[in-house]
Amino acid sequence: MTTLHGKSFIGGNLAAGGQENKRATSPLDSSVLEPPFSSATLEDVDAALKLAEEAFAGLSARSGEERATFLERIADEIIALGDDLLNRAHLETGLPIARLTGERARTVGQLKLFAQVVREGSWVDARIDRPLPERQPLPRPDIRRMLVPLGPVVVFGSSNFPLAFSVAGGDTASALASGNPVVVKAHSGHPGTSELVATAVRRAVEACGLPAGAFSMLHGSGRIVGLALVRHPFTRAVGFTGSRTAGRALFEAAGTRPSPIPVFAEMSSLNPLFILPEALKEHGKAIAEGLKNSITLGVGQFCTKPGFVIAIEGPELAGFQEALRVAFEAVPPATMLHDAICNAFHAGATRASGVNGVQPLGKTTQTVEASKTHGGALMLRTTYQHFLQHPELADEVFGPFALLISVKSVAEMQSFARDLEGQLTATVHARAEDGEVARGLFSILQQKAGRLIVNGYPTGVEVCHAMNHGGPYPATTDSRFTSVGTAALYRFVRPMCYQGFPAQLLPQELRDENPLGIARLVDGVRTTATI
Amino acid sequence: MTTLHGKSFIGGNLAAGGQENKRATSPLDSSVLEPPFSSATLEDVDAALKLAEEAFAGLSARSGEERATFLERIADEIIALGDDLLNRAHLETGLPIARLTGERARTVGQLKLFAQVVREGSWVDARIDRPLPERQPLPRPDIRRMLVPLGPVVVFGSSNFPLAFSVAGGDTASALASGNPVVVKAHSGHPGTSELVATAVRRAVEACGLPAGAFSMLHGSGRIVGLALVRHPFTRAVGFTGSRTAGRALFEAAGTRPSPIPVFAEMSSLNPLFILPEALKEHGKAIAEGLKNSITLGVGQFCTKPGFVIAIEGPELAGFQEALRVAFEAVPPATMLHDAICNAFHAGATRASGVNGVQPLGKTTQTVEASKTHGGALMLRTTYQHFLQHPELADEVFGPFALLISVKSVAEMQSFARDLEGQLTATVHARAEDGEVARGLFSILQQKAGRLIVNGYPTGVEVCHAMNHGGPYPATTDSRFTSVGTAALYRFVRPMCYQGFPAQLLPQELRDENPLGIARLVDGVRTTATI
Repeated sequence: MTTLHGKSFIGGNLAAGGQENKRATSPLDSSVLEPPFSSATLEDVDAALKLAEEAFAGLSARSGEERATFLERIADEIIALGDDLLNRAHLETGLPIARLTGERARTVGQLKLFAQVVREGSWVDARIDRPLPERQPLPRPDIRRMLVPLGPVVVFGSSNFPLAFSVAGGDTASALASGNPVVVKAHSGHPGTSELVATAVRRAVEACGLPAGAFSMLHGSGRIVGLALVRHPFTRAVGFTGSRTAGRALFEAAGTRPSPIPVFAEMSSLNPLFILPEALKEHGKAIAEGLKNSITLGVGQFCTKPGFVIAIEGPELAGFQEALRVAFEAVPPATMLHDAICNAFHAGATRASGVNGVQPLGKTTQTVEASKTHGGALMLRTTYQHFLQHPELADEVFGPFALLISVKSVAEMQSFARDLEGQLTATVHARAEDGEVARGLFSILQQKAGRLIVNGYPTGVEVCHAMNHGGPYPATTDSRFTSVGTAALYRFVRPMCYQGFPAQLLPQELRDENPLGIARLVDGVRTTATI
Repeated sequence: MTTLHGKSFIGGNLAAGGQENKRATSPLDSSVLEPPFSSATLEDVDAALKLAEEAFAGLSARSGEERATFLERIADEIIALGDDLLNRAHLETGLPIARLTGERARTVGQLKLFAQVVREGSWVDARIDRPLPERQPLPRPDIRRMLVPLGPVVVFGSSNFPLAFSVAGGDTASALASGNPVVVKAHSGHPGTSELVATAVRRAVEACGLPAGAFSMLHGSGRIVGLALVRHPFTRAVGFTGSRTAGRALFEAAGTRPSPIPVFAEMSSLNPLFILPEALKEHGKAIAEGLKNSITLGVGQFCTKPGFVIAIEGPELAGFQEALRVAFEAVPPATMLHDAICNAFHAGATRASGVNGVQPLGKTTQTVEASKTHGGALMLRTTYQHFLQHPELADEVFGPFALLISVKSVAEMQSFARDLEGQLTATVHARAEDGEVARGLFSILQQKAGRLIVNGYPTGVEVCHAMNHGGPYPATTDSRFTSVGTAALYRFVRPMCYQGFPAQLLPQELRDENPLGIARLVDGVRTTATI
């Protein structure tokens, strides 16, 4: 096992650290894990961002090829950490080794996918409008434009993806890929995992000869270290995945800075799943099984876990409910990420269970053990009428929990959809015979969500070019961008226009001869040609 | 002359209006213009946005071809207003008929350019990742994504472009082009011009059979009607051009809503212009003439007017200053947009003139007449040393004013550049022999501005594909988007992902057969092919 030092990384140096030292607790058996992790000071925050700002010009000038090599090197260094990484992550998060192995593959895969995109190079949306020297009444100058990086990006590690959305996860990968230095605020739930991954990233920075400030990682509380990072004048953008309260606080802190910056906070989503009558009739049992899997996958600790299931009352509903009951009873209890999440889950489940008109539908029968930070699966049911009277039922319960809401009609289903807040996803199970109903529902859901799914489940977010993991508030603070998939790059860039530039001062992407062979918009026409 | 009614447009209906009735004043002779314009009430705000929300689904479902036809129809209807439009705009803004004729051409031209882009269709950034049913450990579903409109957009008309950045200007054109309903808050400086253009847009809405809520326009104050529009729950985005104070207020109002929305406020910019030694030596006189033109064009009432000129002390500087003096003295006084702008200009010019170490360089010699809302051109000069002691010299003076700052060295010039706030533009005049100095300066200015110009002038913003009219705060509230040029479309859209969708439920843009023949990213490869 690698020895952990428990310090923050200020570029290539380790911070002395502040007075607060915190050990992680293993949710598996409530044991305390060594070593203590030392909180970063406000001076560390300032030092990390000064270093990032210093590194920025050099980093942003690197070619797509160089950035790709860097991302691939990070991936290799993560793999080179071997079982130490998986074992520490398992101890800190309770997630099974198999899941963590899969998550590591995803983390490495997304680094490599971003590398492909920046190596190819067309993502910069290069545009060239050639001069029109003879135009009347005035000539048009030579105008060219491409996307350039924003500057230092602060990334908050999330608790539920200790690898894929933490230190070298999607936010970091997309910020580095687009040429920005990154300062990570490590999640306090998995500080050792964070340190190991940060070590891997640092090795890649050094191997690639990048400026030291390209990457730093600080330990400490969100309220002190986190807010200081967001408020630092050198910070240009923020990526965050977590609770609505924390996300909103960061968003407002960023928006009230003397110079406001964008915050991409991915916060909360109920991910409603609608079952249309013909689908319920034909596939009720299979949907019950699929739903149980989606609700309980990863102990329900996914932003895309379906929290609402909406079905129309009728003869098929009883059989569907019975299938859910049986499925949920067989779900074994499982260790949740940490105490606070587990307690919040139990509190939320208890609160929902106690609401007037809410009835149990199915729950884990095996004993749930507090010392193992266990969460048991729970499904409740209620009617739309009761739901309307109890808006608190729309609060997200993070964990293996969902609420079945029975409606009397398609009209009630549509009405439920119309009242929804913004969501990451909305799913409809339908057969061809449900066609018109499905169409009507999607025209409403299109306004509510960032991803619409037919006959599938929202968990298992693909890392690909067409993914959108985002949605109207409160799913995220900015529905215009995805945090998963290659389009996540676009969060951390801005257009830069070059007017009348001599060739030797232009970036490669905008030169006449198109040395990178990228796709460009030349006088409004898409082409990979030279000029 | 068309008879003006002085009412707000709630879709196709005229609002009864509130108690406040305001007549415009002509800056040409301080005369009061008929009729009175009636301020919208808060009920009008609500009615306009409800109508916009109702119109949204229908409007967003229109094809690119239908949207293009609509935009072109607006252009035709504006032209059909004939001289009535130009004459009224002249009376209300004091801008010469020739300028307004040019601005009308620009307004019509940008509507048609957006029409071209949405008719062609590739701008939606369609992406398709085909299913991998055999993939291990889990199959990949069919995932497709494109950009879809955000919803009702509120546009604030700006005072300095009564046509090109007002009722049917760039913000409205880009919001409509991307499928959003628009509610305009008319600028109180040119209410009659606004009414005429709104009439043209309404005619186009009706001719194209679009839902009534596609376009509304309200009169009233920014502080009451404007803020109510920004805070309305159905408003999804805001476009604004104006002062830093007003822009920031709208930005903060939007960010503290229960459900925050983006505000694209284009606010203030000093547009520094640097003259490197060899350029000063070889072209000093021509630059003095070009600068005078750029500073005084449109009576200096452009966001891209150069407000700072930076040159290195030396033997050539005296000749350059002399050329500026002569050029500025010959500039005739001209009518500014309205009293408030004229008063602010005189106050700002007087304040800057009185700062210790600031000296006059050149000014209009002809008599400036208050009753004609005249502004005279003024150029001042100071040293970098004095400038550093008087940060108030960095306040924008909107009008035909600029400050020449002499530096002792390239290092001082770089230091000045490093301390700049965010700018729309930064310009460098250089000859090949200035190469290294220019390169060093651009590496700093790249962080400060949205558009960099070599040997040109920042005024005269081209409406084209490669334009970026935007920049780091406080130039705008969101440096990631342009407000001029076809990329302005991207402000008002968000990605929507369709997973596992049957063909008949997919939008045209994402169907296998690619019926629109647009460029798409299929499995990561750019192609216009069918699947």
